[in-house]
Amino acid sequence: MLVKKYRDMLSRKSAIRELFDYGRQRAGVIGYENVFDYSIGNPSVPVPERFNRILADLALSGEDLRVHGYSPTLGIDIVRERIAADLQRRFGIPYTKDHIFMTTGAAGAIAHALRAVCDEGSEVVIFAPFFPEYIPYIEGAGCRVKKVRARTQDFQIDFEHFYEVLTPEVSAVLINSPNNPSGTVYSEETLKKLAGILTEKQKEFGHEIYLISDEPYREIMFREKKCPYTALYYDNTITCYSFSKSLSLPGERIGYVAVNPACEGSKLIVPMCGQISRFTGHNCPPSIIQLAVSECLDLTSDMSVYEKNADILYEELTSMGFECVRPDGTFYIFPKVPYGNADEFSRAAREFDILLVSGATFDAPEHIRLSYCIDTEKVERSIPSFRRLMDSYMKGKR
Amino acid sequence: MLVKKYRDMLSRKSAIRELFDYGRQRAGVIGYENVFDYSIGNPSVPVPERFNRILADLALSGEDLRVHGYSPTLGIDIVRERIAADLQRRFGIPYTKDHIFMTTGAAGAIAHALRAVCDEGSEVVIFAPFFPEYIPYIEGAGCRVKKVRARTQDFQIDFEHFYEVLTPEVSAVLINSPNNPSGTVYSEETLKKLAGILTEKQKEFGHEIYLISDEPYREIMFREKKCPYTALYYDNTITCYSFSKSLSLPGERIGYVAVNPACEGSKLIVPMCGQISRFTGHNCPPSIIQLAVSECLDLTSDMSVYEKNADILYEELTSMGFECVRPDGTFYIFPKVPYGNADEFSRAAREFDILLVSGATFDAPEHIRLSYCIDTEKVERSIPSFRRLMDSYMKGKR
Repeated sequence: MLVKKYRDMLSRKSAIRELFDYGRQRAGVIGYENVFDYSIGNPSVPVPERFNRILADLALSGEDLRVHGYSPTLGIDIVRERIAADLQRRFGIPYTKDHIFMTTGAAGAIAHALRAVCDEGSEVVIFAPFFPEYIPYIEGAGCRVKKVRARTQDFQIDFEHFYEVLTPEVSAVLINSPNNPSGTVYSEETLKKLAGILTEKQKEFGHEIYLISDEPYREIMFREKKCPYTALYYDNTITCYSFSKSLSLPGERIGYVAVNPACEGSKLIVPMCGQISRFTGHNCPPSIIQLAVSECLDLTSDMSVYEKNADILYEELTSMGFECVRPDGTFYIFPKVPYGNADEFSRAAREFDILLVSGATFDAPEHIRLSYCIDTEKVERSIPSFRRLMDSYMKGKR
Repeated sequence: MLVKKYRDMLSRKSAIRELFDYGRQRAGVIGYENVFDYSIGNPSVPVPERFNRILADLALSGEDLRVHGYSPTLGIDIVRERIAADLQRRFGIPYTKDHIFMTTGAAGAIAHALRAVCDEGSEVVIFAPFFPEYIPYIEGAGCRVKKVRARTQDFQIDFEHFYEVLTPEVSAVLINSPNNPSGTVYSEETLKKLAGILTEKQKEFGHEIYLISDEPYREIMFREKKCPYTALYYDNTITCYSFSKSLSLPGERIGYVAVNPACEGSKLIVPMCGQISRFTGHNCPPSIIQLAVSECLDLTSDMSVYEKNADILYEELTSMGFECVRPDGTFYIFPKVPYGNADEFSRAAREFDILLVSGATFDAPEHIRLSYCIDTEKVERSIPSFRRLMDSYMKGKR
């Protein structure tokens, strides 16, 4: 009587997970330092010292009921107030605590946002290349996935194709900028055009289309660029955030939903998320972690290593002949492989102890993802291996 | 386009929540110390000092990647190993890490267990009085609730009624012992009889019936009694646990699913839970909290205050004329009210600044729940008010 749907999934292998396991096994043979593992997006820079100090102080405060007691379903009041005030200060949108729902990371945030505004059977649009877990998130909410093909020359939106898939069945559009896996950021121009089309189509269809904006990489930007804040461009925006990357805390599962106050039903969505959490078994994120992050909203880890790695990889990969869009942020780069078969290229790379995730995972099968949250020293040491890989691969093709 | 199902729920008020809000408001008027709030099950005894020390040490260890990095989907290996070994040592069941799935509290555990073994459309049996959130947990898994009426003389199982509801559509039975709200514990005799019937019916129906055992109060037992461990009596048992009560950590949302190794499909259920979590937006519980509890498995808070409070309330309430089953554990007591209208009695109690939850919330509308995780001094001070309430209520009835 094991439920077939989930049982059947066990035989399907996750490409990223498989690569990760291979990497561990290989490290056992040739040493961890000799495996150039670009497969996993586990932030490698230290957590800010202040965060750890605050966490320890909370644990030792003697105020067990405040620190370890139940959080209200929607999150601890003072935490929600601080986040609202911080967003207001930074982006000029009049959020209050009533617009903030605390979640266990961005996954929890997206799961709740989708259930709040997407009727079962409705459609949710996503843009390739996309984080593959978007599919279970959307299907878990009882909705159908509609994919827009990748615009690989710059990874902005292919509006022509977007227009085609945008039917009255669409209840929400889910975007991710800065983007995993491409490292690119939607420009102001892209966001304005997207907002214009959604506004037009809302009128035409006679119902709202919500924009769910997944922004865990918002603070990891390069060359002093700023990431345009999606909610400023479109009223019906629900922002999903995680502190995983900005504070290097992926294991602590802490994030939030921020509902644009100008959003249709803005005051209802957060309490609705509270109701939804009863059905999913989601609980408020841990009290002590809520309290600790709320005292660190002005803080990020020192993420300069990601920019340095991005620069090295961009220069070196393009000089080897890869077509590549320069990342504006994140810790990913997403070059196109010669001859366009990323699965094959990724297999070939293993022979050189370079672990790359095929873009097929992200619905862009001509590209490979490199996750460069590793030491710069290792990035530099990987370059000669990369050159040998490229020589060998090109020779094999001739 | 807000989803109607969740939007409509906003107008329904939770009785416990409403009482809680009333209590806060009343405390503002007459002072917190004068409100006898028996409504909320928020553990009040301190967290063990060792737990807080370990948490602080982890935060300051400098090992950010280990402490704050991603947990594997199923939980951190060493944590799962330690929990399996601890259960094995205590109950003699050969659990290994492959039988343990880490969850965000018992709610997360039950949500996953249900989805793993209950097909959509199947039925799940629960026994009144029950924790009201069982209903959204079951419905959230796409299943139907089948209720067995309360056996109020001792809060063991009404097997006659159980027999009636046990049809081939039943995929699982969800029990909670020690019980919220009654404070009673299923006897060995009850568990043996339950196991016997399930075994018989499994054969008759030709499919498994899983026993999902929700055990967050397992460690809170009185008079040196031991709580019989459900999985010892029935192979197809999935145990759902939370450290909320035993370590006074309800806000930290940490628990697990433990699948009996003798269970049908025992090695599959945990990886299936991992797949399920992708759909619900459940994430592994926070890494640092996983690590900290795994070093405190031999530890509980000092919960003697609960036993003292239980003794006082049992003696006083029965001497006032309440019919009452003596709690064997938890921090609840569930007396029957005179004339059997708990909603009315609970309203009357408010006039005396005593906050009681009507048993209607738990499908036992002749009883009231007192949650006595409050100071003994306050319990004692509440007794005269209780007597005045009882006098006034009985007078009104004459």
